[in-house]
Amino acid sequence: MSDNSALLARRERLLGRNMSTFYQDPVHLVKGEGVWVWDAGGRKYLDCYNNVPHVGHCHPRVVEAICRQASVLNTHTRYLHEGILDYVERLTATFDPSLDTAILTCTGSEANDIALRMAQAVTGKTGVIATDHTYHGNTAAVSQLSTRMPPVGGYGGHVRHVPAPDGYRPLGGVAGEAFTEAWALALEAAIADLKATPFGFSALIIDPFFANEGFPDLPAGFLSRAAAIVKREGGLLISDEVQPGFGRTGTHMWGHQRAGIVPDVVTLGKPMGNGHPVGGVVANSETLNAFRKAFRYFNTFGGNPVSCAAAMAVLDVIEDEKLQDNARQVGAYAVAGLGRLAEKHGIIGNVRGSGLFFGAELVLDRAEKTPATDIATRVINEMRARGVLMGKLGIHQNATKIRPPMPFSRENADFMLSTLDDVLSGL
Amino acid sequence: MSDNSALLARRERLLGRNMSTFYQDPVHLVKGEGVWVWDAGGRKYLDCYNNVPHVGHCHPRVVEAICRQASVLNTHTRYLHEGILDYVERLTATFDPSLDTAILTCTGSEANDIALRMAQAVTGKTGVIATDHTYHGNTAAVSQLSTRMPPVGGYGGHVRHVPAPDGYRPLGGVAGEAFTEAWALALEAAIADLKATPFGFSALIIDPFFANEGFPDLPAGFLSRAAAIVKREGGLLISDEVQPGFGRTGTHMWGHQRAGIVPDVVTLGKPMGNGHPVGGVVANSETLNAFRKAFRYFNTFGGNPVSCAAAMAVLDVIEDEKLQDNARQVGAYAVAGLGRLAEKHGIIGNVRGSGLFFGAELVLDRAEKTPATDIATRVINEMRARGVLMGKLGIHQNATKIRPPMPFSRENADFMLSTLDDVLSGL
Repeated sequence: MSDNSALLARRERLLGRNMSTFYQDPVHLVKGEGVWVWDAGGRKYLDCYNNVPHVGHCHPRVVEAICRQASVLNTHTRYLHEGILDYVERLTATFDPSLDTAILTCTGSEANDIALRMAQAVTGKTGVIATDHTYHGNTAAVSQLSTRMPPVGGYGGHVRHVPAPDGYRPLGGVAGEAFTEAWALALEAAIADLKATPFGFSALIIDPFFANEGFPDLPAGFLSRAAAIVKREGGLLISDEVQPGFGRTGTHMWGHQRAGIVPDVVTLGKPMGNGHPVGGVVANSETLNAFRKAFRYFNTFGGNPVSCAAAMAVLDVIEDEKLQDNARQVGAYAVAGLGRLAEKHGIIGNVRGSGLFFGAELVLDRAEKTPATDIATRVINEMRARGVLMGKLGIHQNATKIRPPMPFSRENADFMLSTLDDVLSGL
Repeated sequence: MSDNSALLARRERLLGRNMSTFYQDPVHLVKGEGVWVWDAGGRKYLDCYNNVPHVGHCHPRVVEAICRQASVLNTHTRYLHEGILDYVERLTATFDPSLDTAILTCTGSEANDIALRMAQAVTGKTGVIATDHTYHGNTAAVSQLSTRMPPVGGYGGHVRHVPAPDGYRPLGGVAGEAFTEAWALALEAAIADLKATPFGFSALIIDPFFANEGFPDLPAGFLSRAAAIVKREGGLLISDEVQPGFGRTGTHMWGHQRAGIVPDVVTLGKPMGNGHPVGGVVANSETLNAFRKAFRYFNTFGGNPVSCAAAMAVLDVIEDEKLQDNARQVGAYAVAGLGRLAEKHGIIGNVRGSGLFFGAELVLDRAEKTPATDIATRVINEMRARGVLMGKLGIHQNATKIRPPMPFSRENADFMLSTLDDVLSGL
């Protein structure tokens, strides 16, 4: 164990109790480069977790863009500046032509806080539907979507939940179209329930990759059916791209494109500025104008020249270093490797993912699919002890969460796989 | 007029309609340094408005701190890092010892969104009191405090407003202790009103300098009376220091210290990172722990090493360049200069402020104090045309808002004053 006791005591004194850390033995990081991070003792770790340093920790082109713009001008959008215009033009060009305008924020939470109000402005309603194992951010309004913990003062009553889709344990035990249909019925019921209240139905908000729900394998057309229902019922479809966006899933730039749908509103966060605090909301101009008219939003730091320079550099690097394609190839390679580990280790019940967001669901027995939640915790701690950082997630918190910076290579995957093989062998 | 038509058209196409700009002829800024900014045509402007570049536009020490840390490591607080601890230790040392812990965010809006929930966590109640001309941020929850525009779905019913204190036109026409007492009665009535609802009373949230309300001159002890009432009634006092904080008012580091009160929660934003997106909430550890326990808050970008390096550099520069003392001296000098202009120009009805946040309230006649709102608009546009950037604010939107970067000098004040003299002479 590292001796972090003094640092942990200082944290509790200055930041309060109950501030979460990763791992039983937390890591004290001091340096990052590409897919690697170093702790205070000089130990090197392979980062298989962090999606915020999307194009790699401390990518020199992003750092250079930040330094250059920070030394020239950093101010707000009530003055004119080309930085935000160049960025939004470049960003929206990666979307369906209907998604042609944007508001920039500082965090994904702020983006989702706006997205919910966009749906209110367009529909005049306030009821929202989300899945029962999702997380869309930390503001008071967005936290209302979470089922984790009832807020003080109670839930607002305007949120309905649909079951988190689970391809490994599908709703009602059905597969394929029947699974899609079962979920569609749950969605229709939630909408009908909201419509029977004064809240009405304003939006379905989902991560189209369902990352926090455990990135399930879903039948083709799964979300098309849901999108059609939302449209028919007069609501907006909000696609939270904080996790699958910016090419992470390998096959597509955006998770909703991979799912084959065109949402009404898209929200962006974490990877957008490679760690610089920037987020955003992309929508068609009518939706965005309705929001501005109804709420007169202004964000002091949102869209400032430095944030836009950082975000633009991220797009440049994704393109120039072909990182989406790298995610597709290395992700497929790593998933195949996990598949081989599954042949050897019975605890791996299911292997899935797309691009550089993948993992294995650990189960106590394959027939019953009993979640091996405690063992998953032990596995990620053992991996950390051996120099590989990853997390866990999913409905049962028993799936490994492997979501490395995008320059992750086959060699990196091999190191992660061989370490995981060792850890699983030692259980 | 500058020809910004192409840029404005691009803005509307990419950022939507109704996105606010300053001035009839918006300024297209490309460069900033100290108290100066330059437009795309190479024209130089004295910045008398921007409090975000607190220690001066592109201050080299802040830029250097950002570049250095961005090139070494930028990650989240679930790993251990000394940057956030060193910063929070240094920050909290500037407060009353009871305010000893902090949560860092990316914006002042996020900070106020947390502060409201801190009060909920401590009191178990959700009712809030604010003034009727304030602004505390842009999240859905914080926007509920504003009276500007009813949100879609209506107000939550949990907010009560007290009249914005106005020293120039005091409530009921009374002055001194009677004014304090009149406001205290309004506050008590609002609390009683909330207590008669299921919401109960959780907090009074104020900017102790009442910046958006027009930074009124208030009787000594004005807020002590309010603080005592809030405490007696079991609520929390939230001091929004986004505008008066970090030494701006000259006499004190924080607006609440100037007002002679110790709040339960303090929120920080704009100037904290000199433009880098960083905000924060300071509270005693019990309050902070109650919040963490009730809401399990995590902010991905909040408190990252780069944001902390930027914020730390701001504290360094404030101290090393004695900027608080500069604010006190130059502010007093400028207010005296405005006082001399008032002798010459009858339109100036009242001159007030503290440190580098001051201005003149423009009136059509001094006896009736009729707000000269349209003329105030004309004045700030004329100032812009002559190379001086300032704004307007207040209950009647007729007070000039002069709130320059903190290295503002007597020479800068002279230039602003002589330009204003010219503009007022030409009305």
